Amino acid sequence: MTTTLDELRRLTAAAAKAAPIAAAASDAERAGWLRAVADRLDEHADELIEIADSETRLGSTRLKGEVARTTGQLRLFADVITEGSYLEAIIDHADPSATPPKPDLRRVLHPLGPVAVFSASNFPFAFSVAGGDTASALAVGCPVIVKAHSGHLALSLRMAELVGAALEEAGAPAGMFGLVTGREAGNALVGDPDITAVGFTGSVAGGRALFDIAASRLDPIPFYGELGSINPVVLTAGAVERRSDELAKGLVGSFTLGVGQFCTKPGVVFVPSGAGFEDAVAQSVDGAAGGPLLTDRIAEAFPGGIRRLLDDEAVRLVSGAAEQDAVNDGATPVVLATTAAAVRERPETLLEEVFGPTTLLISYDSEDELLASLAVVPGSLTATVHAEDDEEVEGIVDALRRRAGRVLFAGWPTGVAVNWAQHHGGPYPATTSLYTSVGATAARRFQRPVAYQSAPERLLPPALREDNPLGIPRRVDGILVLP
Amino acid sequence: MTTTLDELRRLTAAAAKAAPIAAAASDAERAGWLRAVADRLDEHADELIEIADSETRLGSTRLKGEVARTTGQLRLFADVITEGSYLEAIIDHADPSATPPKPDLRRVLHPLGPVAVFSASNFPFAFSVAGGDTASALAVGCPVIVKAHSGHLALSLRMAELVGAALEEAGAPAGMFGLVTGREAGNALVGDPDITAVGFTGSVAGGRALFDIAASRLDPIPFYGELGSINPVVLTAGAVERRSDELAKGLVGSFTLGVGQFCTKPGVVFVPSGAGFEDAVAQSVDGAAGGPLLTDRIAEAFPGGIRRLLDDEAVRLVSGAAEQDAVNDGATPVVLATTAAAVRERPETLLEEVFGPTTLLISYDSEDELLASLAVVPGSLTATVHAEDDEEVEGIVDALRRRAGRVLFAGWPTGVAVNWAQHHGGPYPATTSLYTSVGATAARRFQRPVAYQSAPERLLPPALREDNPLGIPRRVDGILVLP
Repeated sequence: MTTTLDELRRLTAAAAKAAPIAAAASDAERAGWLRAVADRLDEHADELIEIADSETRLGSTRLKGEVARTTGQLRLFADVITEGSYLEAIIDHADPSATPPKPDLRRVLHPLGPVAVFSASNFPFAFSVAGGDTASALAVGCPVIVKAHSGHLALSLRMAELVGAALEEAGAPAGMFGLVTGREAGNALVGDPDITAVGFTGSVAGGRALFDIAASRLDPIPFYGELGSINPVVLTAGAVERRSDELAKGLVGSFTLGVGQFCTKPGVVFVPSGAGFEDAVAQSVDGAAGGPLLTDRIAEAFPGGIRRLLDDEAVRLVSGAAEQDAVNDGATPVVLATTAAAVRERPETLLEEVFGPTTLLISYDSEDELLASLAVVPGSLTATVHAEDDEEVEGIVDALRRRAGRVLFAGWPTGVAVNWAQHHGGPYPATTSLYTSVGATAARRFQRPVAYQSAPERLLPPALREDNPLGIPRRVDGILVLP
Repeated sequence: MTTTLDELRRLTAAAAKAAPIAAAASDAERAGWLRAVADRLDEHADELIEIADSETRLGSTRLKGEVARTTGQLRLFADVITEGSYLEAIIDHADPSATPPKPDLRRVLHPLGPVAVFSASNFPFAFSVAGGDTASALAVGCPVIVKAHSGHLALSLRMAELVGAALEEAGAPAGMFGLVTGREAGNALVGDPDITAVGFTGSVAGGRALFDIAASRLDPIPFYGELGSINPVVLTAGAVERRSDELAKGLVGSFTLGVGQFCTKPGVVFVPSGAGFEDAVAQSVDGAAGGPLLTDRIAEAFPGGIRRLLDDEAVRLVSGAAEQDAVNDGATPVVLATTAAAVRERPETLLEEVFGPTTLLISYDSEDELLASLAVVPGSLTATVHAEDDEEVEGIVDALRRRAGRVLFAGWPTGVAVNWAQHHGGPYPATTSLYTSVGATAARRFQRPVAYQSAPERLLPPALREDNPLGIPRRVDGILVLP
């Protein structure tokens, strides 16, 4: 079942009609819509998890947590818009004595308009139909049209029914939410004149193709894509010396979590040469669970990615089997190893993301070599360092910060907290923009500023009226003022 | 004199080397750099104005004001970074009792890296070598390489000397500022691997070509372009009835200001049919000053643009001469008129920006016709309405807001205040991004977020340390806290 271009046009036209109504709705009304969707999904959690498990084989424990995360995310955005800072209201009163005289000027953010959201294969709830992109767009008053992922189509259709019905019953305008299926409809969606921005989570190849459509429009639109990430980890000599087994265990847990299909999976690990860390990992990974991969396509690609790495003369197999029938038997963990020198010579080959339960241990001889090697690591969502308290790692932290959007200390990157401070983004190809797709600040992606000059009080948006009827934080004549 | 590609590479490599040093500098240090540049330019104002006048013929009064605006802008950004909100510091403390447990997470904005700035022809100071793009990039710690505009090359070279020397003496790192000339160097600059973002002010054709280079890089970078703007004005029946002459005078003053070469020039004016406003404008424009245009190329294009409009059967000449030798004699004001019906039929032809002292009066029969016509107006930097207090103009304001980044009431769009609330941007082609190129929030274009997870206090940037050593506003556990 795929959406025809006629059906697509009807959906985007309806979204364009809904946009001004949604923009005019109060924050309290929109917060109500989000909470209604969250409640509806929680009510249907068991049914949804069953469909999702049959399509993705992710297991009910993981999926249950993901539903909770998804509904929590919807409720977080209800809180974010209620708090009101997201409107970035700024008021500069007139200054007739200035040279030249300054007029009264007041700035606020308005919703962009209909947003296209491309769902991901690996998070059927949290990065899909009612995931973070959808929640943040609806929150600020943008209608959403989701492109369903073919890996969990039945779930997507059922989710769309529930989301649509919940929005309608909560009073959202018709056209506020729609769903399309099929690659042709997806491409057309990005080029559709009524679409004003795109949120995307997926592969580098797929994301870049859609980015190119968005950028080559007559009127280019922002494309917020999360594409691919190798997520480097650095282990210092001190850390390996003192906690080798613990680190090996943590690493194995992280790179095999969700059968290695997290966008924050640690794909490469810089380890000090000759410290025996490979053996510790080989021991830990022995018996670690693999499992079925999300789709046959991903399962077919997994051993291919391993073989491509092993074709390089500098790459060795530490643990696991290069030859796997991951389609029929599921994937089993594979650990590879190489040297920092080889990585610096052939970064394109050795630092390409392999989706699935595998990681590459890269041995380095000195901090200088480590820093030189980190400079060739592609932009990533996360970068992690494990060090001892008395080690001087400022240089390493600085190098990691340049390559990633989140820097972790003494932890593992899988697991992305949904809160105000989260940043899930990073230098290309981690993301195609400077924004996050997780956490409160994700809402800013779907808003644009408008300044009102010398506007009569009654024509100003409530956020900008003199007596602050919304009771929100604002900057007034340069000073941040709390309500 | 044009920059060779070898020279360009040396400049961008030096900028890349300066970037981490500038990023590590304190806000107070960078504020000092900006103030040093402002002081230096003020000291040399007379000399600079003389060079600028000889190259642009804009006149010393206007240029004097522009220098003051430019140095004021540099000082505003010094204030902005001193205040500290621009860092968008967010702290979420750990919550071990949450499911799953939440780690300590702290987010702050870091500078992107070297920025390319393309200067404009029409503002040799405020949107050029040391203009808003340069000031906002330097403020947040990004080195800048300016592409000089050929229309004021001598000024650009002298400005670059002064800016470079002031930065060096104030302690900024070598490589913090550079200047290139020539189209080839400009194109190469946008594609240069060390460049992380581009600021641009200029034409739709030139800007789009550079946007396309930025978007087609292996690693696409943000392109903050201000391209072109028709700046619609709406006059209601009530306003024209009561203040026809005053409005005509105001309009003529605005569309002829700077010989019609402002990006916010009112290019089209919607006027009620049969209210005699054309006559009032014809009377006001009689004897209004024209003047020399900025460059021969602009002067050659001006009568061509007028003729192209007059070739349309629905366009009439209200005042002025279609045939002009603007290259040798300067440009004289031209007023044209057409109908809203014609504009809706041929928006591509009738609503194209003509740079220079001309405006197009568009007569409308009803508010419905006005609203339908506003829907085809291209994205603009500004939109203006003149109405009487007792008129209901909510619908008009809403339509204008959708097409522009700044909505003005009872004023004229030329004149852009530099302050916290300003927004100088709008839907494409007004800008290629959701950002402003004027005012405090312009700084956000050159920053990207980084989140620190479970970081030891000593490894956190000062903005995120527990005791808030910078004394800046921060969001802590969801609550905005003032210092």
